[in-house]
Amino acid sequence: MSKLHHVVIVGAGFGGIQTAHHLKGANVRITLIDQHNYHLFQPLLYQAATALLAPSEIAWPIRHLLRKRKEITTLLAKVINIDKQNKKVILESRESIEYDTLVLATGARHAYFGHDEWAEHAPGLKVLEDATSIRQKILIAFEKAEAESDAKRRAALLCFVVVGGGPTGVELAGTIAELAHHTLNGEFRNIDTLQTRVILIEAAPRVLPSFEESLSAYALNALKNLSVEVELGKPVSDCNALGVVFGDKKLPSKTILWAAGVQASPAADWLDAETDHVNRVMVEPDLTLANHTEIFVIGDTATIKDQHGKQVPGIAPAAKQQGQYVAKNIKARLKGKIPSKPFRYKHYGDLATIGKRAAVFDIGWLKARGRIAWWLWGIAHIYFLIGVRNRIVVAMHWLWIYFKGDRGARLITQVDTQAPSKKENI
Amino acid sequence: MSKLHHVVIVGAGFGGIQTAHHLKGANVRITLIDQHNYHLFQPLLYQAATALLAPSEIAWPIRHLLRKRKEITTLLAKVINIDKQNKKVILESRESIEYDTLVLATGARHAYFGHDEWAEHAPGLKVLEDATSIRQKILIAFEKAEAESDAKRRAALLCFVVVGGGPTGVELAGTIAELAHHTLNGEFRNIDTLQTRVILIEAAPRVLPSFEESLSAYALNALKNLSVEVELGKPVSDCNALGVVFGDKKLPSKTILWAAGVQASPAADWLDAETDHVNRVMVEPDLTLANHTEIFVIGDTATIKDQHGKQVPGIAPAAKQQGQYVAKNIKARLKGKIPSKPFRYKHYGDLATIGKRAAVFDIGWLKARGRIAWWLWGIAHIYFLIGVRNRIVVAMHWLWIYFKGDRGARLITQVDTQAPSKKENI
Repeated sequence: MSKLHHVVIVGAGFGGIQTAHHLKGANVRITLIDQHNYHLFQPLLYQAATALLAPSEIAWPIRHLLRKRKEITTLLAKVINIDKQNKKVILESRESIEYDTLVLATGARHAYFGHDEWAEHAPGLKVLEDATSIRQKILIAFEKAEAESDAKRRAALLCFVVVGGGPTGVELAGTIAELAHHTLNGEFRNIDTLQTRVILIEAAPRVLPSFEESLSAYALNALKNLSVEVELGKPVSDCNALGVVFGDKKLPSKTILWAAGVQASPAADWLDAETDHVNRVMVEPDLTLANHTEIFVIGDTATIKDQHGKQVPGIAPAAKQQGQYVAKNIKARLKGKIPSKPFRYKHYGDLATIGKRAAVFDIGWLKARGRIAWWLWGIAHIYFLIGVRNRIVVAMHWLWIYFKGDRGARLITQVDTQAPSKKENI
Repeated sequence: MSKLHHVVIVGAGFGGIQTAHHLKGANVRITLIDQHNYHLFQPLLYQAATALLAPSEIAWPIRHLLRKRKEITTLLAKVINIDKQNKKVILESRESIEYDTLVLATGARHAYFGHDEWAEHAPGLKVLEDATSIRQKILIAFEKAEAESDAKRRAALLCFVVVGGGPTGVELAGTIAELAHHTLNGEFRNIDTLQTRVILIEAAPRVLPSFEESLSAYALNALKNLSVEVELGKPVSDCNALGVVFGDKKLPSKTILWAAGVQASPAADWLDAETDHVNRVMVEPDLTLANHTEIFVIGDTATIKDQHGKQVPGIAPAAKQQGQYVAKNIKARLKGKIPSKPFRYKHYGDLATIGKRAAVFDIGWLKARGRIAWWLWGIAHIYFLIGVRNRIVVAMHWLWIYFKGDRGARLITQVDTQAPSKKENI
């Protein structure tokens, strides 16, 4: 058995991959565990969900990304518990992996504010399978509407609701509106896709509540220009097979997408750790678990305040910075140094698109809105993609869509061709 | 109700799409029905199954392909019967579509020579979902082997069997061997992918039995150069969870792929028609059903002999030529002419690849083998793809793979991370 220091990283999202990346050159053995075989570029997930990009353009096999790092073993496995006492990671197969240092970067999922029963009717968007099934749901709604003779049922099929006005919700609503009103326009004979309604519901008084107010206002206007109906200050009170209820309104809809709420992975349960109200692990300033300096918890599954006392947001750049910090920390310890600096978060900016011709882009010294912001947003995201080939593919795909309005990723791969009247009543 | 002649086409494969395409300008109303929302480029399906291409590169939304043809209504639906008497197509939803002329182009699936119970252990490759689940099966086998401590079980996981030595089987075996021995080489730490065995089993005395003998011999050699073990003259006698039995050999394998046998779609049952031994509809020389000149049956689901008395093969060019012939026939009838020429099949040639550097290409006046044949094969297939963007995408993807050996389409989208020992015993 190797006496090399063994670092086990659970989760191959932004946090886990950056930790592995920045451990290069350290005198360690690394095992990276993930329940999927790919690293997912989450910021573009909404594009896979709305048939703009194909899944293979935003996800890459982990072991391929790390193939040149001979000291890294990649394992496709599901973690179910941590034995802190004996320093073991327990897998679903009942096997266990011993560690010297553990890094948990297991992310978060969406949450339904105590109404988990809504999940069945309002899927969220966090993993690749979500994107494929949402894409299918959206495209099938149009196909069913084309075959539907009853006007009320047809209207419900052509009514798309997005719950949650943060960046994900705004991006989803904008691209669904474009899909309906532009891309699919003219492809159907019995329905007029211009009649499609897209409604975005947000409980706060403005969309993009975490952005600067002027950018929120701009985004609201851009959504309206795309014919998205925006309902502000109204939390959803019910969600079922017939539609959604918010404020005092009942809205019949067959496609409700959930982009609100967050709940952390079970990492806190495995560690029996102190948590916040959405189960994120409360970590020390150096991102370790209290009384366990050999355990780091980073990314969306952890909660920490930055140097200004502000909650570090659950976004990709934060997870990446934490991953880099942890790797440096581990390297310093191995050299016998005691790392003293706490984690410092650098907020780069706020970005969101609204359809394909408008965006908000705010990185402090550079603010932009509209078409120019969309190009900047595109460049920023391409920059952060991994791999030359992927950058070329996505860039060309976007250019093609921008100029030709084409959507290449519109496959429905599991089909339910039953007439709507058989399954649900409105 | 429109008095326009109504042509109903069932199936949007090569036959159906060509019929629709060549009916342009005719004074008809057309309804095209398919149980999927996409047209699939089947010749490249094996590449999606072996993670070379992504599904979206070989399948395109039907209504997008036909969007400019205002007289064509595309319906996503499943046909379950034909009422010849009343000239109606019956859908699974119990709705019916009346026709004046009916064109059935519903294709074929693979067959297990009377052993349908083998399907569970040996999936075939005919539709897009087959490709995705086979890709997953292959990639998961390597992941499970990486986590497997028992040597025998690991060997069975790293043993891939392809049944059927026609073009599909040869192409599958070749690319799996390359995937294992080249692409994945170096990405695993506990297994050596060079130890992977790929076995191709063919009941006839040679691979590519329908090709010219010298090309068969060349393909056999190319397969051996890729370390594919070829077993000739041995039909499979059993197929189960443990492996495959052929001749007097028992081979433990966890991944068996079926590329042998064919059975037609249920079209013959719907029509209560005369059939051959694999349920293909026996059609008249003008591709109509006996006593029903308003019903055409074309492509893999029909059987007809060509002008030389030879069986028209179940390949894409044949279906396309039949689609074109039928459209011309319908146009002539509408003009009051009685079409008199029977269908004539023009065999363009035989093409197959073995890995990414060898192929056989025989179009009569031009025969080629080896690397040059691979380029010709590539050009021919790109030519037949639909749409400028798709041609560019696939061409660039192949060039990238050719020069860099990269495989971009390696996602496992539904994961079973249970240890093998839990599920099956060897």
